[in-house]
Amino acid sequence: MIKSLENLIGSMKKLPGIGEKSALRYALWLINNSQDAKEIAKNIETAVNLKKCKICRNLCEDDVCDICLDSSRDKSTICVVETIETLINLESQHIYNGVYFVLWGLISPLEGIYAKDLDLDKLKENAQSAKEIILMLDDSIEGNLTAQYIIDMLDGNIKITKPASGIPVGYNINSLDRLTLQKAFQNRIPY
Amino acid sequence: MIKSLENLIGSMKKLPGIGEKSALRYALWLINNSQDAKEIAKNIETAVNLKKCKICRNLCEDDVCDICLDSSRDKSTICVVETIETLINLESQHIYNGVYFVLWGLISPLEGIYAKDLDLDKLKENAQSAKEIILMLDDSIEGNLTAQYIIDMLDGNIKITKPASGIPVGYNINSLDRLTLQKAFQNRIPY
Ligand SMILES: [Zn+2]
Ligand SMILES: [Zn+2]
Repeated sequence: MIKSLENLIGSMKKLPGIGEKSALRYALWLINNSQDAKEIAKNIETAVNLKKCKICRNLCEDDVCDICLDSSRDKSTICVVETIETLINLESQHIYNGVYFVLWGLISPLEGIYAKDLDLDKLKENAQSAKEIILMLDDSIEGNLTAQYIIDMLDGNIKITKPASGIPVGYNINSLDRLTLQKAFQNRIPY
Repeated sequence: MIKSLENLIGSMKKLPGIGEKSALRYALWLINNSQDAKEIAKNIETAVNLKKCKICRNLCEDDVCDICLDSSRDKSTICVVETIETLINLESQHIYNGVYFVLWGLISPLEGIYAKDLDLDKLKENAQSAKEIILMLDDSIEGNLTAQYIIDMLDGNIKITKPASGIPVGYNINSLDRLTLQKAFQNRIPY
């Protein structure tokens, strides 16, 4: 097969959930739509240079993200999320006016991810000037392990809450609709 | 949202079958896997510079593709395919030793694609030095319209065949297994 087509298919197959067939289909589409393809390539190259916010670990173009810079946001409430997918989801729904902390992972001994890999020292530092920490984490073994670690780490010095019950057990937070999320926020309860 | 993430999501959504959710997931994966992401971007930029073979319209890095340059291939048999997906599929199965002609489309009055858009003059020219033309096209309105146009164009001067019956009506050629394809090739019949 043509070397550069083979290379493209090979690298696209690394994307999560993309097999040989889809990679071939996307590769041919890209070759047939070269303007869009060049735009995608350019946007990838720009996006990989995004940094993590020095305060909250949200993605940003500069050192500190727009949310942390926004003086209208309530800095005394920190919502801890696993990925920025959850942050983006919450932001698009406009139901939360505090700030965030993005963990970029959960403690998972099975996958070799431990507390030291999660930058929790920074969260501890941020928590010192806050009044409430909301743990917006998946209801899974890893989510609960991480929540418990954070609770122990903050050691009773701050109010720690979680989304209200009403979220089905084992449900992925990123699949919830606006109403469920809003209710879960309003009824949040202390750990 | 972060501008460069938004741009990346926006351009990835143009890929066929990719919606907002998948585009976000792929974008975040790319940002978190910057080495793979840079490789994908580089491979896209190389692949969009692929040319079409001057003889058969297969994709290639130079003017003429490896299949047309290969002296062991039977140049007197031309297999006409709609897309190079079919060509790649047939090549990976090693069941055909002739050459190809890639149409890059089918006649479709509904979509405004007419014979003049398919580079059929070049096929006519190639057919002059060939003994057999195999029409390996989908069994659809567009596939049959295109087949009939080619038959009329070549005007009885050459043997024109199609894959043997056994391919289910309306079935997409690219979904067939090796055995079905091989049988269809062996039992090909004249139009
Ligand atoms: Zn921030
Ligand atoms: Zn060729």
